[in-house]
Amino acid sequence: MIDSLIRKIKEMNNATVVGLDPRLNFVPEYIKEKSYDKYGKTLQGASDAFYNFNKEIIDNIFDLVPAVKPQVAMYEQFGVHGLNAYINTINYAKEKGLIVIGDIKRSDIASTAMAYSNGHIGRVEVEEESFEVYREDYITLNPYLGYDSIEPYIGNCNKYDKGLFVLVKTSNPNSGEIQDLVVDGEKIYERVGKLVAQWGEKSMGELGYSRIGAVVGATYPKQSTELRKIMPKIFFLVPGYGAQGATAEDLAGCFNKDGLGAIVNSSRGIIAAYTKDEYKKKFREEEFGKAAREAVIRMRDDLNRVR
Amino acid sequence: MIDSLIRKIKEMNNATVVGLDPRLNFVPEYIKEKSYDKYGKTLQGASDAFYNFNKEIIDNIFDLVPAVKPQVAMYEQFGVHGLNAYINTINYAKEKGLIVIGDIKRSDIASTAMAYSNGHIGRVEVEEESFEVYREDYITLNPYLGYDSIEPYIGNCNKYDKGLFVLVKTSNPNSGEIQDLVVDGEKIYERVGKLVAQWGEKSMGELGYSRIGAVVGATYPKQSTELRKIMPKIFFLVPGYGAQGATAEDLAGCFNKDGLGAIVNSSRGIIAAYTKDEYKKKFREEEFGKAAREAVIRMRDDLNRVR
Repeated sequence: MIDSLIRKIKEMNNATVVGLDPRLNFVPEYIKEKSYDKYGKTLQGASDAFYNFNKEIIDNIFDLVPAVKPQVAMYEQFGVHGLNAYINTINYAKEKGLIVIGDIKRSDIASTAMAYSNGHIGRVEVEEESFEVYREDYITLNPYLGYDSIEPYIGNCNKYDKGLFVLVKTSNPNSGEIQDLVVDGEKIYERVGKLVAQWGEKSMGELGYSRIGAVVGATYPKQSTELRKIMPKIFFLVPGYGAQGATAEDLAGCFNKDGLGAIVNSSRGIIAAYTKDEYKKKFREEEFGKAAREAVIRMRDDLNRVR
Repeated sequence: MIDSLIRKIKEMNNATVVGLDPRLNFVPEYIKEKSYDKYGKTLQGASDAFYNFNKEIIDNIFDLVPAVKPQVAMYEQFGVHGLNAYINTINYAKEKGLIVIGDIKRSDIASTAMAYSNGHIGRVEVEEESFEVYREDYITLNPYLGYDSIEPYIGNCNKYDKGLFVLVKTSNPNSGEIQDLVVDGEKIYERVGKLVAQWGEKSMGELGYSRIGAVVGATYPKQSTELRKIMPKIFFLVPGYGAQGATAEDLAGCFNKDGLGAIVNSSRGIIAAYTKDEYKKKFREEEFGKAAREAVIRMRDDLNRVR
């Protein structure tokens, strides 16, 4: 999957990932009304609105970006209907040729991690039958439990050509509380970066990068530049651009000299572009997909200046 | 919820938590056949079997233990049907008066954490309507992202009288890879323990313990004894007893002098007791619930020796 990702980044000349993290307060009224008419103002109604919102976004950006990243929390909060919208969104994105990064940030001991791994990126067995359940191409993971909590995913990555992004340095304001603690002269995130580089060695693709990637926040430019050196063959999934405050210049250090090595996520900055003053002048609410498309083009060009 | 938990531990004279982590290989054939007859050997069939298995376990232990801990991964792997079984299990356990600890180990930035928090321990709004979705009393969380990733849960804990168990020192073999790194003379898990103690101060119950608890693995007795001192008012959720190898003696240090301060989880050791030689002699497959009941009584008495 890392090779497919790299090929798509090159083909589209775009390192942008569109974060599919809808919120009811920016799903257009006409979409919500249609869903509420069908299912009421219920968890099912909200889930249906999310799915229809995502479809319109995907229809407008699938030919421009290599990947989308649905954040499972936004769907999980609505229970089974939400999870259904999550799965349907993944399937729709894949039909349109997009690579799907499931932002699930799971973490558990090995026997439990195996269940997550099979469900999300492998196959789940029911007696002699087996099923693909979530069908993400990539998922994100939290490393706090150590290697035996990550290993159950690596087998499925290699077997089914899937990929991982392991949290190394996250984009949030308090990420330093644990991640920046200093151990023998190096920060925890550097130590975790070295571990990820080591874990990734056995899962190399053919184009020079590993199937095991890292999450490195754009909001910490100095740290991400250091991490780029520590993990030369590790692809970065970079959150924090736009709504969280990071600029293209902030994340220049995430890229290698080949212009590769990182994909940059933007969620609200793209999918809710139509709510911003600069887009409002140009697009009606019904054209939120077109506004998202323009936001993707702007972001692509902005990133291409620095990579 | 911490006060209710303490009252129930005292009432039942039992610090045991039953982990509801079913696996198809130990769900009795007669239960699976019934579900497969209805839904086929499908994700729905497997989910239905899990739920029926859990009901029988719950019916046999609800009057003996304060709490159950379903591990969401076991259900999540089966997609929407699995999640439905998870929710139905929670509701059934609560109807029977049990406290439910959702073992979800989520971790994300604040805006995303809010969605998890509302879905699991708060209320989810759909316009002017609001819904309780998962209805756990407690959930587990991963602290790698720092305080702003935990804070969105604390509001709901205080508002709805819920509780958290934050991973501090986990029970798995590689937990030391990150958690045991030394920072200024103290281990990361000690540092995280201090943070949890501090986070817990603003969410104190009336009986001397905080609504914010900690996960501390029974497999590391020395470390858990140290952590008990660092976090005197923090309740521990202790995995690792039984199947993972820890004995009652190993976890004696998790308890305070009041005999409180910890609840100890056992999953397979209880719910799959009937598959073990010592129980096989006494119980038929159809009596797996009775075998679980006997395993709970043995565990209760074993723990009561050391607390």
